[in-house]
Amino acid sequence: MTTKPLSLEDIFLLARNAMLNAGANEENADAIADTVMQAERDGSHSHGLFRVPGYVASLVSGKVNGNANPKIQSRTPVALHCDGDHGYAPVAHRRSLHVLADAAVDNGISVLSIDRIHHFAALWPEVETLAKRGLVAIACVSYTPNVAPFGAKQPLYGTNPLSFAWPRPDAPPLVFDMATAAMAMGDIQIAARDGRSVPIGTGLDARGHATTDPSEIIKGVLLPFGGYKGSHIAMMVELLAGPLVGETVSFVSKERDNGDGGPPQGGQFVIAMNPEILSGGNWIEQSEGFISRLSKMDGVRLPAERRYLNRKNTGPRQVNSDLLEQLQSKLK
Amino acid sequence: MTTKPLSLEDIFLLARNAMLNAGANEENADAIADTVMQAERDGSHSHGLFRVPGYVASLVSGKVNGNANPKIQSRTPVALHCDGDHGYAPVAHRRSLHVLADAAVDNGISVLSIDRIHHFAALWPEVETLAKRGLVAIACVSYTPNVAPFGAKQPLYGTNPLSFAWPRPDAPPLVFDMATAAMAMGDIQIAARDGRSVPIGTGLDARGHATTDPSEIIKGVLLPFGGYKGSHIAMMVELLAGPLVGETVSFVSKERDNGDGGPPQGGQFVIAMNPEILSGGNWIEQSEGFISRLSKMDGVRLPAERRYLNRKNTGPRQVNSDLLEQLQSKLK
Repeated sequence: MTTKPLSLEDIFLLARNAMLNAGANEENADAIADTVMQAERDGSHSHGLFRVPGYVASLVSGKVNGNANPKIQSRTPVALHCDGDHGYAPVAHRRSLHVLADAAVDNGISVLSIDRIHHFAALWPEVETLAKRGLVAIACVSYTPNVAPFGAKQPLYGTNPLSFAWPRPDAPPLVFDMATAAMAMGDIQIAARDGRSVPIGTGLDARGHATTDPSEIIKGVLLPFGGYKGSHIAMMVELLAGPLVGETVSFVSKERDNGDGGPPQGGQFVIAMNPEILSGGNWIEQSEGFISRLSKMDGVRLPAERRYLNRKNTGPRQVNSDLLEQLQSKLK
Repeated sequence: MTTKPLSLEDIFLLARNAMLNAGANEENADAIADTVMQAERDGSHSHGLFRVPGYVASLVSGKVNGNANPKIQSRTPVALHCDGDHGYAPVAHRRSLHVLADAAVDNGISVLSIDRIHHFAALWPEVETLAKRGLVAIACVSYTPNVAPFGAKQPLYGTNPLSFAWPRPDAPPLVFDMATAAMAMGDIQIAARDGRSVPIGTGLDARGHATTDPSEIIKGVLLPFGGYKGSHIAMMVELLAGPLVGETVSFVSKERDNGDGGPPQGGQFVIAMNPEILSGGNWIEQSEGFISRLSKMDGVRLPAERRYLNRKNTGPRQVNSDLLEQLQSKLK
């Protein structure tokens, strides 16, 4: 695999121009390009420029609205709803996360149901944004069925990522963002592209047999992480990010999708909680003592540690040459 | 292992009398005995009579208040706090879960922080109670450090169970209740008592080596389920059920515990959500379609299915003879 260096600003502009070129307006293009740039900045290639062809495909096919005008509504003072207007998720986030945060700061807890969006990015930007307001945050989305429930050989669950953020007074938030599949589909696609194998337990081939070949798993089915317990978490995400927010579960999302290569329509579930209120004002000593002890254990790395380290580097990023050429040629 | 049959009523009375005999008042004894009976009824022996000696030990030592008078307070209309008054958790639940449910029914979401309790039971009774009110519920507790974070060989996390319930219109709720340890401590203790081995990956011995001997794991450390992803879930539970509710993390809970064999003081985190409000009134078709498809897949069993099946049997339960003799002799 050959790569070429590209500055973060050029990554942003490349993504932005690809979206504008595919018919998105500036607000939508900026919001999407920002998540692409942030993913490359933090070293998450599977959510970076790698996704741009998919973003573009669904703008071009008309499945996703590049001029989405998401609207936020308070169903109660703490139950907020955002109608994503068939757009990509980032513009919905820009308009709703601060409203969710305000409600949690005042009331201790608030929840955001987003429907009619297309989510094609990492989940940590949402929960990190909320944690920077001093809030504990949980977010999840579902997708299309790629993952077999524990014991089964047929897909039902999406890769269904779940993310969590915990605020810290003098450090960036503690954040995890993980697929409830044993491996995220983006990482399997990249492994297939780069000719790498994946561990046993990642997925099954089309005949239902275990394999280490990512291209066979793409034709077959992924497995949930952690056996039946991870399968329970995947099931919970399916329900929270679908029916609970008024949206479809993964298999229905797929049935309604046009197969253009971009993400299906779906929902997103986000909770924000104010630890000052929930704890009675007595939480930092315990949580900082815990995180400090965890971070000092032999063999342990805090989640998001590598991402924060990557973020300190403001220099250019190495981008897959074929991908770069493909994206640049389309803009000529 | 020899067993003797005991009716559900006699199981309740045996547990109740053990609590009264150890100094609990009727309200506290009834609430505890009810969870013990329900566990035996549903086939969860590790949360049934097996726990009574531990319950009794902490009443006798004076660590747990058998005359607890928990008080519920609304910090905001949706952020409720219950001071457990150093009692066992079930009496706090009897006084607070219906208040939590009312707040979620009206506002879409509500959260309950319980502190100063001792939780020694399963978590499904709490979430099942809420789901029977038509609510989606999530609950968790921490414990004492028995589980090594992924990559480490020393304990930091409790077995930190997480439970979830989803309401169904014409069926009992979909519920899971699982330790974030690869196996719950109660099940490991029962395996050790009965001389059974446990799977590799359950835990490490005192020297940090993998073992299938549950008695060696009791001297060593448990592992989280599902590698680093399960470890993230365990970490989240540690923060939600400790600092977020104004309580201690597991390693501090242990430092403050008197080692009498009963559960340490800790907190509990419970969320309730009204799907009618969060979904805009449009959730049952999707969730029932999903659960129906899941339940029909080859190799899949819905969580709680076995528990609901056991519950239909109103006959006597088989109880370990040694345990029964031990409990009955103390009451003479």
